[in-house]
Amino acid sequence: MLDKPQVIEGLRQVLDPEIGINIVDLNMVRDIIIDGGKVKVTIALTVAHCPLAKTLQTDVEKALRKISGVSTVTVDTTAMSRKELEDLRVQLQARSTRQASPQRASNVGPGIDRLGKKGIRNIIAIISGKGGVGKSFVTSMLASELRRQGYEVGVLDADLTGPSIAKILGVAERPHKNEAGAIEPIRTKTGIKVMSINLVLEDPTMPVIWRGPIVNSVIRQLYGDVEWGDLHYLLVDLPPGTSDAPLTVFQSIPLDGIIVVSSPQELASMIVTKAVNMARKMDAPIVGLIENMTFLNCPHCGGRIDLFGEPVGAKFAETLGIPFLGAVPLDPNIPRLSDQGSIETYVSSVFANVANELRQNSVKQVEQLTQGLPIAWGT
Amino acid sequence: MLDKPQVIEGLRQVLDPEIGINIVDLNMVRDIIIDGGKVKVTIALTVAHCPLAKTLQTDVEKALRKISGVSTVTVDTTAMSRKELEDLRVQLQARSTRQASPQRASNVGPGIDRLGKKGIRNIIAIISGKGGVGKSFVTSMLASELRRQGYEVGVLDADLTGPSIAKILGVAERPHKNEAGAIEPIRTKTGIKVMSINLVLEDPTMPVIWRGPIVNSVIRQLYGDVEWGDLHYLLVDLPPGTSDAPLTVFQSIPLDGIIVVSSPQELASMIVTKAVNMARKMDAPIVGLIENMTFLNCPHCGGRIDLFGEPVGAKFAETLGIPFLGAVPLDPNIPRLSDQGSIETYVSSVFANVANELRQNSVKQVEQLTQGLPIAWGT
Repeated sequence: MLDKPQVIEGLRQVLDPEIGINIVDLNMVRDIIIDGGKVKVTIALTVAHCPLAKTLQTDVEKALRKISGVSTVTVDTTAMSRKELEDLRVQLQARSTRQASPQRASNVGPGIDRLGKKGIRNIIAIISGKGGVGKSFVTSMLASELRRQGYEVGVLDADLTGPSIAKILGVAERPHKNEAGAIEPIRTKTGIKVMSINLVLEDPTMPVIWRGPIVNSVIRQLYGDVEWGDLHYLLVDLPPGTSDAPLTVFQSIPLDGIIVVSSPQELASMIVTKAVNMARKMDAPIVGLIENMTFLNCPHCGGRIDLFGEPVGAKFAETLGIPFLGAVPLDPNIPRLSDQGSIETYVSSVFANVANELRQNSVKQVEQLTQGLPIAWGT
Repeated sequence: MLDKPQVIEGLRQVLDPEIGINIVDLNMVRDIIIDGGKVKVTIALTVAHCPLAKTLQTDVEKALRKISGVSTVTVDTTAMSRKELEDLRVQLQARSTRQASPQRASNVGPGIDRLGKKGIRNIIAIISGKGGVGKSFVTSMLASELRRQGYEVGVLDADLTGPSIAKILGVAERPHKNEAGAIEPIRTKTGIKVMSINLVLEDPTMPVIWRGPIVNSVIRQLYGDVEWGDLHYLLVDLPPGTSDAPLTVFQSIPLDGIIVVSSPQELASMIVTKAVNMARKMDAPIVGLIENMTFLNCPHCGGRIDLFGEPVGAKFAETLGIPFLGAVPLDPNIPRLSDQGSIETYVSSVFANVANELRQNSVKQVEQLTQGLPIAWGT
C-alpha cells in the first residue's frame, strides 16, 4: 500500500529549480492526498506565477511516477506567504553560515579589481583554449535550453576579435543607453539578453585591431556598464587562447563555474588541457567538459563517421579530473541554423543535462546559498 | 614543321623556381636540338646540383609537350659559370631599379620596429581570424609541398597560446642554442625547420598565461633570435583574432604575402573578412584565399556531405577581391595524420597550386628582385 512517507521520500528528489535544494527541506510541500494509486500534491511556490512553476510540476510528476503503485499524479500549486518566505530566508542563511568555507583565493593582478555580481545568480564562462571547437554554439545552445526551462538568461560575448554570438542567436539591433546611462542588452526571440561588440560596430565585418589593454577595458565594460538586470544565468563566451581576453574575464568577473568545450582531436585535447590548467591556476571552479563534433551520421546512408577521431570525451574528462557533461554529435543543421541565427530552435538532450548539472552545481556552491533566493525577492 | 622560335616561346612559359622569372630571359637556355618531333634542350642552372633542378626539368618537359608536333622531350642540365652568374645579378638589379615603386607605407606603431629579413626570401603569413578552420593544417601542408619541391622551408608558430604546428609536423625535440648563441630550429623528417613555443615548454599542456606585451616580445624572439639560416620560404602560422599576436606579426615581420584560410560557414566568412580587412589596413599583400573543410565524401556510401554549408570559397574570394587558391575537402585522414604528426605524408593537389601561386607572387613583388638570386649566392 502506498503511503505518505514514500511520497515524501519521492518529493525529496525534486530540487527547487531556483534554489537548488529539495522541496521537502524547503517546506514547499503543503498537502499530500493518496487515493489508491492516485496521488495529489500541493506545492507552495516561492513566487506566484513563477516562470519555473512548469519545470517544478514536471519534476514532481516524474519523481512520483517512479514510485511503485502510483498510477496518476496531480500537482497543484499555491504561493508562499510573506511570513513563510521570511522563514525560508532565515533557514537558508543559517545553512549557508554552517557550510561556510574560507573564501577562494583571489588571483586578481595588480590594478585589476574584481567587479561586483549585481543581480546575477550564476556566472558561467565557456572556454576551450582551441578555436573552432564550438564554444559559441555550446554557449548559445545552453542559453536556449536554460531559457526554455524558464530562467532569465544573458550571454556576454567576450570574443571581441571573433564575435559569433550575435549572428548565431539572430540579433543585429543596436543597443541603446537607458535613462540611467547604462547600455540595454538586446533580447533574442525567446528573450535571451545578448551583448556583443558586433552589435556596436557600424559594420560587423570590420575588425577591432586592439591590443590587450583596450580589449580588457572593453570586456569589463560589456559586463559592468551593461544593464543585465536580474539574471539566473549569465553565460560568458570566451575567445580561444590563454592570453589577455580570457585572463581579464578570469580576473575581473566573479565566475561561478567554467564549462570546457573540446573536440575528439588529440590536438584539441592538448590545447584544451592548457585552458583547463589556466582555469585551475585562476582558481575558477570547473563544472565539466562537453565534447562537441563527436561524430556524424551520413545523411545519405546513415553510416557513422568519426570525422575528428574516435570520441574520447569521457576518458579525456577523467584524465583532467573533471565531470563529463556529454557529447554533441556533428549535424549539418547546426552550422545552417547558426548561419540563419535560429539556433534557439535546435533541441539537444545534452544541454538539458548540462542545465541540470548547473543547477546541481549551484547547490554545491556555498556562495550561492546566501543569495539563493528567488529573483523576485532581490528587487 | 617544328622550329626553334616555337620551342623558345614554349620555354618562356617556364619560370626559374627560385627567381620567378622565365628561363629564356634569364639566359638559362643553352642549347636546343630539334630532330623531327624530338626536342633536346640544355638548361644552365644557377647552382650546380640545385635541389630545384628536378622541378625545373619537369616544368620544361610539361611546357614543351604542349607544343604541337613535339613527341619526346629530353632535358639536360649544366651549371652557369661565375661570370654568367655575375651578369645575371647585374641584369636582375637593373630590372629591379627600373620597376622600383615607392616603398609600402610602414604601419609600424610607436616603439615597434620592423625586423630585418635576414637570409629569408619569402615570408608568408597564414591567417583566418576565426579559430578551428585549419590554419595550422594549411601551413603544414604548404610547407610540406614546398619542401617536396626542393625548397628550404621554415615554419614559425606564432600561435603561442594554442600552438599546433609542432604536433602536426611531428617534432618534439627541444631546441638548443648554437655556438653563436642563436636558437636552432628543429627539423622535421623531410627537413622543414620548425620553431614553436611548445618545443620550449617543459610540459606541452601547460598554458602560457601571458598578456600582450610578453606575447609580442616572444613572437619577435621566435623570429629574430632563431637561426633560420637561408630559407626560400618562412611560413608564419598566426593565432585567431585581430589583437596582439597578429598585430605584432604584421608590424614586426617583413611579410611578403598573406594566405587567408576560411571554411564554408557564413559565420566564418564574417570573421575571416575581419582578418582580411586587418591585413589591408596593415598594407600586407594578400596572395589569396584557401577554403578548408569544403565538403566530405561519406567513407561508407561515397555520398557528398556539405557539412559546414555549401562551398562558397570562389564567390567569397571574389567578394573580398582576392584570388581564390582552391578548396580542400574534409577528410578523416587529416585529423588522424595531424594527431600522429605525419601530415607531411598527405598530398593534396590544392597545395601544389598554392606553391605555384607563391612562386608567381614573388615575381610580382619588386622587393624580391633585388634579392632574387639563388640562395647559394647569399652565403
